[in-house]
Amino acid sequence: MSYFSFEIVHTSKKSRARVGRIHTPHGIIETPNFVPVGTNGALKAIDSVLVDKLDVQLMFCNTYHLMLQPGPDLIQSAGGLHTFINRKKPIITDSGGFQVFSLMYGGITAELKSSGAKKENNSVLKINEDGVLFRSYRDGSEILLTPESSVQAQKKFGSDIIIPLDELPPFNMNPRKLLNSFERTHRWEKRSLEEHLKTPNNQAMYAVIHGGIDPELRKKSAEIANNQAFDGHAIGGSMGENHEQMFTMLDGLLPHLAYERPIHLLGIGDLKAIMPFVLKGIDTMDSSYPTKCARHGVLFTTQGTVKLMNSKYRDLHEPIDKNCPCHTCTNYTVSYLRHLFKAHELSAYTLASIHNIHFMINYMAEIRSKIMNDEI
Amino acid sequence: MSYFSFEIVHTSKKSRARVGRIHTPHGIIETPNFVPVGTNGALKAIDSVLVDKLDVQLMFCNTYHLMLQPGPDLIQSAGGLHTFINRKKPIITDSGGFQVFSLMYGGITAELKSSGAKKENNSVLKINEDGVLFRSYRDGSEILLTPESSVQAQKKFGSDIIIPLDELPPFNMNPRKLLNSFERTHRWEKRSLEEHLKTPNNQAMYAVIHGGIDPELRKKSAEIANNQAFDGHAIGGSMGENHEQMFTMLDGLLPHLAYERPIHLLGIGDLKAIMPFVLKGIDTMDSSYPTKCARHGVLFTTQGTVKLMNSKYRDLHEPIDKNCPCHTCTNYTVSYLRHLFKAHELSAYTLASIHNIHFMINYMAEIRSKIMNDEI
Repeated sequence: MSYFSFEIVHTSKKSRARVGRIHTPHGIIETPNFVPVGTNGALKAIDSVLVDKLDVQLMFCNTYHLMLQPGPDLIQSAGGLHTFINRKKPIITDSGGFQVFSLMYGGITAELKSSGAKKENNSVLKINEDGVLFRSYRDGSEILLTPESSVQAQKKFGSDIIIPLDELPPFNMNPRKLLNSFERTHRWEKRSLEEHLKTPNNQAMYAVIHGGIDPELRKKSAEIANNQAFDGHAIGGSMGENHEQMFTMLDGLLPHLAYERPIHLLGIGDLKAIMPFVLKGIDTMDSSYPTKCARHGVLFTTQGTVKLMNSKYRDLHEPIDKNCPCHTCTNYTVSYLRHLFKAHELSAYTLASIHNIHFMINYMAEIRSKIMNDEI
Repeated sequence: MSYFSFEIVHTSKKSRARVGRIHTPHGIIETPNFVPVGTNGALKAIDSVLVDKLDVQLMFCNTYHLMLQPGPDLIQSAGGLHTFINRKKPIITDSGGFQVFSLMYGGITAELKSSGAKKENNSVLKINEDGVLFRSYRDGSEILLTPESSVQAQKKFGSDIIIPLDELPPFNMNPRKLLNSFERTHRWEKRSLEEHLKTPNNQAMYAVIHGGIDPELRKKSAEIANNQAFDGHAIGGSMGENHEQMFTMLDGLLPHLAYERPIHLLGIGDLKAIMPFVLKGIDTMDSSYPTKCARHGVLFTTQGTVKLMNSKYRDLHEPIDKNCPCHTCTNYTVSYLRHLFKAHELSAYTLASIHNIHFMINYMAEIRSKIMNDEI
């Protein structure tokens, strides 16, 4: 399949970390890399042209949101998601399942505390072998999300990488229910792959690896995925209550995943976690962490984070990072950025987001360089 | 005074419209020109570097807001307002009076309906010959705004053009009170000019012309201003209940203002009014109208306004204006911009603002060209 391939350039002598290149119809993704989240087909506060200029090689968009607004048909009529949002580089989309099940069980924090109890007034109307029926928060209409309909939406988007529909079981679900969910998820993924392969359209599909923090289930999930014609693997499902449980789970899982396929980690990419992920052999990871931090005035530097609202930055007439070549640091001071935040000026969010995205992209380039030199 | 001068390049044979060049220490302002408002030292949703690139030759900032956050001393410690906000081109600041009196009598709409009655819970504590004592909405502290303190704040900012403190009397104030206010305003302006001329610092000061819609008072105000060493004139005060009253007032006033000084109109610059203003001889006008429209999804084109939220634009996969060379029109479609607004994405406000500011700047350049050719 020439439209999509993963080339492993170098594996570190010190760890499982590897430098690779994912080839897609919209260009190359150098790995390891960070994947910013542009939920609605837009990175928050940064327009697509600028996102391309910041060398964001892969952007993550959410099918759930795009399905409800503006809808797959409208995006298709525009010529696909790349044309619609004017992005030249690769795009990965999820299935919509994560948001639907978050609506059902609550957000990640609430989900960790739940044992599978549904939220009151939740918008999920029915879930069965076919798929999930839920109510649109935008217009109240009923929407049936199935493995097939999710793939069809992502076909209309023309995403470079498609994620199949999975069920996100709550962390504390009882073992029998968890196993049922696990098995249904893999049946859904198989249906998704079949639907996808009817019209591959130069798109790739990653399997989602499930199994919670159960090492045997994770291993089994890896084997199921390895044995099907997926182009890569995305680690999903519950990853435990803290970083330690997650790292233990990953240590157990990663040796079982097909080495020659790219490995994505879904929805986690805080600064502290990235290096451990890379050392364990993860190639890409998506997160809204840098843009969310930016909008809260938390800026990344090699010397630690700068919390702009701290009064000690009131009259710091210097860039966030003197050595940073980003638009924000070459043009503005900490004191001015802090003022923009205090005054609730919209450009505050843009300038802070530009800096944090630039930092992440640069950080990943340094990591790749260290792997090439077997330093990590 | 070589740091500031007004050069009249051409006066139309058809009207009082004129093309000129205002020379300032931060460059030339070609007139007639539109002056966007960057209240807090930032155009809403567009950062300073981009504002300069859009060729915004004069930007209007509000002393009231900057005085409360981050404060004149902090701005001075940063090296002045230009350095603080990283603007290379000229800046005009007002006195702070407009906002203080708006707080006292309510906004423009409420003000038109009032007869000078103070708002309940208004933050103005005292007003006398000395100045205005008001309470900061940020921290509750008491602040005394006097002609001298306003000039001193604008000195610390290093504004290219300073506006002296005036009183904004309500439209329907009784004639005796109005005359008292008129006379006090001119005493305040005289004190402001004296304070300014102690340390001119390459800055210029415009007089504010008052008198409401009374032709005799307006004439008198013009004469008072003409006879003092102001560098230009800014038309302020109440301008009537509608465009017609305003235009009548301007027709009466403008022949009395010193021809060789630049004439600014304070706070009005909607699309319909600009051409009449220019034909009457106004050189510059400030308004937040284009950026405010942009944030409400109202976009300017030569064919009329595009209201993005209108469902007819849902699948218009074309630029706002095919002939517009702005960043927004060369990169994005109406359907995508509409989607960004529907999804409440911050880049919607930036992209819409860029287009409207570009439109205004371009519109004014066309007007100058028409005057040069005696077409208007």
